[in-house]
Amino acid sequence: MNAYSSIEWRDGTLRLLDQRQLPHRTEYLDYIDYREIPEAIRSMVVRGAPAIGITGAYGLALCALGTNQPDANALLEKLRAAQTLIHDSRPTAVNLAWALERVMKCAEAAANDGAEAIQTAIVKEANSIFAEDLKVNRRIGEVAMELVPQTATIVHHCNTGSLATAGYGTALGVIRTAHESGREVLAILDETRPRLQGAALSSWELLQLDIPHRVIVDGASGHVMRTRGVDLCVVGCDRVAANGDTANKIGTYNLALVARAHNVPFYVAAPTNTIDMNVADGDAIPIEERDEIEVFRVGSERIAPEGARAFNPAFDVTPAQFITAFITEKGIVRPPFDDNLRALFE
Amino acid sequence: MNAYSSIEWRDGTLRLLDQRQLPHRTEYLDYIDYREIPEAIRSMVVRGAPAIGITGAYGLALCALGTNQPDANALLEKLRAAQTLIHDSRPTAVNLAWALERVMKCAEAAANDGAEAIQTAIVKEANSIFAEDLKVNRRIGEVAMELVPQTATIVHHCNTGSLATAGYGTALGVIRTAHESGREVLAILDETRPRLQGAALSSWELLQLDIPHRVIVDGASGHVMRTRGVDLCVVGCDRVAANGDTANKIGTYNLALVARAHNVPFYVAAPTNTIDMNVADGDAIPIEERDEIEVFRVGSERIAPEGARAFNPAFDVTPAQFITAFITEKGIVRPPFDDNLRALFE
Repeated sequence: MNAYSSIEWRDGTLRLLDQRQLPHRTEYLDYIDYREIPEAIRSMVVRGAPAIGITGAYGLALCALGTNQPDANALLEKLRAAQTLIHDSRPTAVNLAWALERVMKCAEAAANDGAEAIQTAIVKEANSIFAEDLKVNRRIGEVAMELVPQTATIVHHCNTGSLATAGYGTALGVIRTAHESGREVLAILDETRPRLQGAALSSWELLQLDIPHRVIVDGASGHVMRTRGVDLCVVGCDRVAANGDTANKIGTYNLALVARAHNVPFYVAAPTNTIDMNVADGDAIPIEERDEIEVFRVGSERIAPEGARAFNPAFDVTPAQFITAFITEKGIVRPPFDDNLRALFE
Repeated sequence: MNAYSSIEWRDGTLRLLDQRQLPHRTEYLDYIDYREIPEAIRSMVVRGAPAIGITGAYGLALCALGTNQPDANALLEKLRAAQTLIHDSRPTAVNLAWALERVMKCAEAAANDGAEAIQTAIVKEANSIFAEDLKVNRRIGEVAMELVPQTATIVHHCNTGSLATAGYGTALGVIRTAHESGREVLAILDETRPRLQGAALSSWELLQLDIPHRVIVDGASGHVMRTRGVDLCVVGCDRVAANGDTANKIGTYNLALVARAHNVPFYVAAPTNTIDMNVADGDAIPIEERDEIEVFRVGSERIAPEGARAFNPAFDVTPAQFITAFITEKGIVRPPFDDNLRALFE
């Protein structure tokens, strides 16, 4: 599907594109032991909420296949432990919890038919999650087209492309669909410190797709809006609360505030599996604090003195009031978000 | 005055602390040829609007001392060419133009007494500009104290400390005065991409002063304000227009918008020589666009793929409406800025 599929499942091996090496090297890591999956997520071999969800699902598949446990109930027990282990590697995004839960339900439904049936069911379900994600992404792109003018300068934060998903992308997929539909698109890519997903990953994807772009430092979005004009912002999300508050990569909230000050529409591309109706609002979404070293080191380069201290929240919450609309595979959701998000699930 | 004076004048040699090497190495470069000064400014051996102004003044001193021209008028001619050469190295900040102009007026006034008198007058004037800057900085710190509560979390952008000035600092000087006055200060330092003056320089200064700080990526200021609470922001400036619009390091405008959204006061520490009454508003301030490589390379580390493109504005303009007050050595200036800034010069 893509020249650079970030996740591949091949006969019991999970192959992940090591995104830490991009854009310099295209290296794949093969996983056959589910116990290595949490570290792959934590260290960001794989990143992007949808991609992490898929990886988690295949992680359970690795667990199921990697055991010779003939007893279905014992296997379920083992899978539940694996679910917890994998789940805890990324607290903010909800896709991981969602995908693990979905796979576990399948496993439980197959348990009456024995351990082998569980194995088969899990692999099948993980493959389904992968395939559905790709379809959802393409649909989000189509749905979004009514929001994108014929000539469009679009600000994007982080990376939400093929690399962050099964393929195609969510917010970056909107930019891609706009380009493929013949619109004249200029993508403005927030570099997205500290991990630089915009500079390293999104520009890499857009170069391969031949979509014009400019990377900017995260602090420059206001200047660009004020002096060059921007038509819209589109970002992804790690978890949307029932009221529309949205957790996403650190820097998203600043961009939303800057967009509001310039009356630039701010859209969140949200597969419905990132919407967590069990969480009332953003205050209930846990925000992962990561190691200070991520702020202080870029590659091998140390940028701050020894002894310096940092705050390093990996995500932030954008309150619903700063979001113009959600772009889901089921359509565009506008305020009031509490009613209209709930309606998606009825 | 400081263990790390960034500018020293010693018997006809201008010694600059090479700020590109900080925080890793404390290296000084000696200049005796004024023709090397523009490159020292462009390549950011020295940076910070006040420091650049002082460097420009000493640059003219180097020019005057470096010639054996006995004819006063010929020397003036040479100095005027040097003034243009140095001036063009940094279009956005006004201190450089101001300092060069001030030194040239002195030179012209001394011309009747011959070339040697010009030499003496220029060195003396450059020394005065240096000494006055230090005094102005300390005064700005004192003036600001009525704005800083007893316990204060203060966001700062870029570096405006001793390194950026003759010593002590402007906005960082406010934080320093607050600390020295016994207030309980936590400085939140925007890392300030692309050149990372916050992470590399401001944290380095605050570590030496034993002032508690946390570096954050530029995109995290909104999250910090929303979740931890911030009492005020204080930044420096490269040029203030007559209406209060303020050019400063890229990212300042975003921070101002984020502060406004949280009702956090946003203060600009502004020596009066950074206020340019000849410029009506921010649209008339030239914004330096710097090489894309600054966005794509951190030290020796390349962060984006070959072929990627960037916008790299070095400064932005914060419209006056987002500024709570200016802190000048003559007092605090509140809106309406057009009247109240003019009053400073009457």
